[in-house]
Amino acid sequence: MKIDVNSDMGEGFGVYQLCDDDAMMNIVSSANIACGFHAGDPAIMTNMVRLAKARGVGIGGHPGFPDRQGFGRREIPFSDDEICQLVAYQVGALMGIAAAEGGRVAHVSFHAALGNVINRDEALALRVMSCLARLDRSFIIFCQSDTIIERAAIAAGLRSLTLFLADRAYQANGQLVPRGKPGAVINDEATLRARVRQFLQTSSVTTYEGENLPLRARSILVHSDTPGSVELATIIRSEIEASGNSVAPASDVLAQ
Amino acid sequence: MKIDVNSDMGEGFGVYQLCDDDAMMNIVSSANIACGFHAGDPAIMTNMVRLAKARGVGIGGHPGFPDRQGFGRREIPFSDDEICQLVAYQVGALMGIAAAEGGRVAHVSFHAALGNVINRDEALALRVMSCLARLDRSFIIFCQSDTIIERAAIAAGLRSLTLFLADRAYQANGQLVPRGKPGAVINDEATLRARVRQFLQTSSVTTYEGENLPLRARSILVHSDTPGSVELATIIRSEIEASGNSVAPASDVLAQ
Amino acid sequence: MKIDVNSDMGEGFGVYQLCDDDAMMNIVSSANIACGFHAGDPAIMTNMVRLAKARGVGIGGHPGFPDRQGFGRREIPFSDDEICQLVAYQVGALMGIAAAEGGRVAHVSFHAALGNVINRDEALALRVMSCLARLDRSFIIFCQSDTIIERAAIAAGLRSLTLFLADRAYQANGQLVPRGKPGAVINDEATLRARVRQFLQTSSVTTYEGENLPLRARSILVHSDTPGSVELATIIRSEIEASGNSVAPASDVLAQ
Amino acid sequence: MKIDVNSDMGEGFGVYQLCDDDAMMNIVSSANIACGFHAGDPAIMTNMVRLAKARGVGIGGHPGFPDRQGFGRREIPFSDDEICQLVAYQVGALMGIAAAEGGRVAHVSFHAALGNVINRDEALALRVMSCLARLDRSFIIFCQSDTIIERAAIAAGLRSLTLFLADRAYQANGQLVPRGKPGAVINDEATLRARVRQFLQTSSVTTYEGENLPLRARSILVHSDTPGSVELATIIRSEIEASGNSVAPASDVLAQ
Repeated sequence: MKIDVNSDMGEGFGVYQLCDDDAMMNIVSSANIACGFHAGDPAIMTNMVRLAKARGVGIGGHPGFPDRQGFGRREIPFSDDEICQLVAYQVGALMGIAAAEGGRVAHVSFHAALGNVINRDEALALRVMSCLARLDRSFIIFCQSDTIIERAAIAAGLRSLTLFLADRAYQANGQLVPRGKPGAVINDEATLRARVRQFLQTSSVTTYEGENLPLRARSILVHSDTPGSVELATIIRSEIEASGNSVAPASDVLAQ
Repeated sequence: MKIDVNSDMGEGFGVYQLCDDDAMMNIVSSANIACGFHAGDPAIMTNMVRLAKARGVGIGGHPGFPDRQGFGRREIPFSDDEICQLVAYQVGALMGIAAAEGGRVAHVSFHAALGNVINRDEALALRVMSCLARLDRSFIIFCQSDTIIERAAIAAGLRSLTLFLADRAYQANGQLVPRGKPGAVINDEATLRARVRQFLQTSSVTTYEGENLPLRARSILVHSDTPGSVELATIIRSEIEASGNSVAPASDVLAQ
Repeated sequence: MKIDVNSDMGEGFGVYQLCDDDAMMNIVSSANIACGFHAGDPAIMTNMVRLAKARGVGIGGHPGFPDRQGFGRREIPFSDDEICQLVAYQVGALMGIAAAEGGRVAHVSFHAALGNVINRDEALALRVMSCLARLDRSFIIFCQSDTIIERAAIAAGLRSLTLFLADRAYQANGQLVPRGKPGAVINDEATLRARVRQFLQTSSVTTYEGENLPLRARSILVHSDTPGSVELATIIRSEIEASGNSVAPASDVLAQ
Repeated sequence: MKIDVNSDMGEGFGVYQLCDDDAMMNIVSSANIACGFHAGDPAIMTNMVRLAKARGVGIGGHPGFPDRQGFGRREIPFSDDEICQLVAYQVGALMGIAAAEGGRVAHVSFHAALGNVINRDEALALRVMSCLARLDRSFIIFCQSDTIIERAAIAAGLRSLTLFLADRAYQANGQLVPRGKPGAVINDEATLRARVRQFLQTSSVTTYEGENLPLRARSILVHSDTPGSVELATIIRSEIEASGNSVAPASDVLAQ
């Protein structure tokens, strides 16, 4: 079976770098590239597209709120219309950069507060997905399963790719344990390996409370902005390959 | 004969507005829409696209240097690669906004310092035009005739639409009289009407020095950021129509 | 009696201008100068300080949220510490500009969302005022009477100057009628003159509901970003002078 | 003898960090704090001021061009007036932040392109220094000896503190070997120690060409944005202390 491994990338700005994008681009099969609003700039975006193309990694847009100082994590009040506009602007900008480099944007993954706001409002989500469908009907939307975003993507005629966040603890209802709580983020290598193996073998995850939670997912998300993210990604990839599965971009995963 | 009338538009930002875009959109046949770097933002771009679509006006990208405070008029040192990147980003962003609204970007016109820098360097100009051709081979490049930009556009397989700046005095060599000089900008209605008539009848302009200069142009550019720009545009349009010609977007002008 | 007339000024950016600051500077006695976050830039701030100095107008800081695109009107989540930091930064910046021009910042008036957030939280307000007192103990804080900001300013050892918003309708509880409501903004010259006269003679205003509301105020605020703001300010000033009172900066008003 | 050790600090932005400011603040005696134009923001500036105050480190302003994307390294055309304005704005802003924290700005050091532009033009340099003198006559200006900036600072009645760039090769004329050239930056620990010792003992440096160049300097500048900058700074400080000299802020160095 083919599994995608994805990460948020190109989240630096000017001289600033947030993670070792070059190393990470050797591990993932899909790159969610920041589009210049919460992070990224045309030079970084171009570099990411070049690396992704050269290494067969899927190119994706990672739009966020126009809030560089807050890294797109603050909920700034925008109207639904404005949210569609800033998504269209950013994804269009990456499509321009990709086209200039002979590449193509294959997927979209929403960043932080922008994702939270969209995933909370069915009407807004449907509007955003319809907007994206007008940019390219073949876009794949990255999201967690059984969410407002997934349903809206499908309703708008787009495909979804569901995510497993291997380094984050899950609650019984399928939502993530908030970052503040102890144990919310999994750093321990053995635990991480065990979680990936369990997911690959049984399509389930053991929750924070210790119960078995079935999990529908075709891609594993690796956080790039945590220390040791490259090592984490390497562990996840090695477990996938050790299990007899292979790592492949979103479009290949959906085509199988 | 069909003649295009174009103007730079959507050059406000947030609450700021530079000219009466709504009134101007009733007069021009092509709108050069700022793309969010020297001016404009996703909301303004969306509004411009909606107005242009509703009124049959051609949608064009008007990329500039990332310099909102200097309105894109300052020459900031960028490498050739960076210039291509920021053009691809901005034009791509407008393509995204246009697609979201069911529209299409038909032409590209370079703003201020960005245009000057490109128009001074053949290698850079060719690189930028090749980049734009990868975004869309059907783009029309707005430029003055017999310039580096025009030659590069054609070399890259793109079409050009040549401009007559009716409200600016020309030198014998075909270049504009610098803004600082007295008489460089023509505000007088009678003179302006006479210039438009002369251009329509004889494809020429009387230079600053009083000689006749043949002028190859298919579009008249109206500056939007001068006082009285809407009245100026109205005068130009009325002269075109009074002469038995008609005002039409760039693609129609080239198709005739 | 001396009355202050104040207005928000220097709220342009780069080539953009929001109101005719030059004309307005001939009418007001205190200028609330934008400090570069929601609007303004070093060049505009310098120009405002020069005009204010030349015309004997009091120089004040008008800090806002760092949100140029939203003109400081959006409530962006900031911690209390961050709000103190951005106030200190902006007021300090204007103090720097003023010092470079041989002037002095005399007062502070908070812009839009920043003012709303501070005026809603006693602990935050006290913290902001204590912070400002460390910049200059002689600052005068512009505010409406009987508000959290007024009480915090006094508790921090600062002086307050209370405002009458002559062009806005008041509710019985002393708060403004929200802008959306019909009649919330008073544009009619006769009504405006009557309101100013009533305020000057009886220190009261007739509320939206038609009752008499006592009003403690030493300065009249003129909105600069509404059409006709200069005419409005002229009317207010002429009423003050016709009544035998005089227009004077905040420090003179408090010293009488 | 007291020697100052200084470094550019607080040059991150939002979530981005450029060097380990916390570690560096344990080594230097003067901190040149970015002021929010080329880098830094109110939160970072506040944190730097707090660390400096707690550790007895001198607080200095490090103004730069308003060019976050280019990290203040690009020469953007500004008029002399505009340059004074942006210096006054930034230094004033840091004075505001420092005052809010009970601290004081003691010195000013110019960043990258801004420093280069000022150091090339005597009239501009004198104007900038006179402007700074109006903000605070006790400011100490950090600069290389026998430069336009040093002469202008003294002419404006300010004090200068001259710098030795221990990790950069010098030419016979006292100017630095351009960064591009091999050997322009000294990374080797033994060489670095030898250079610091030579400077402390003989007030001279061996040039790129191998000759002895007398060097008048009271502070050693450590570049913070190079890999290993904290180790480099530690080496320099240990050499100073091993030589029987002591490390002290600029004001103490000038007072001895």
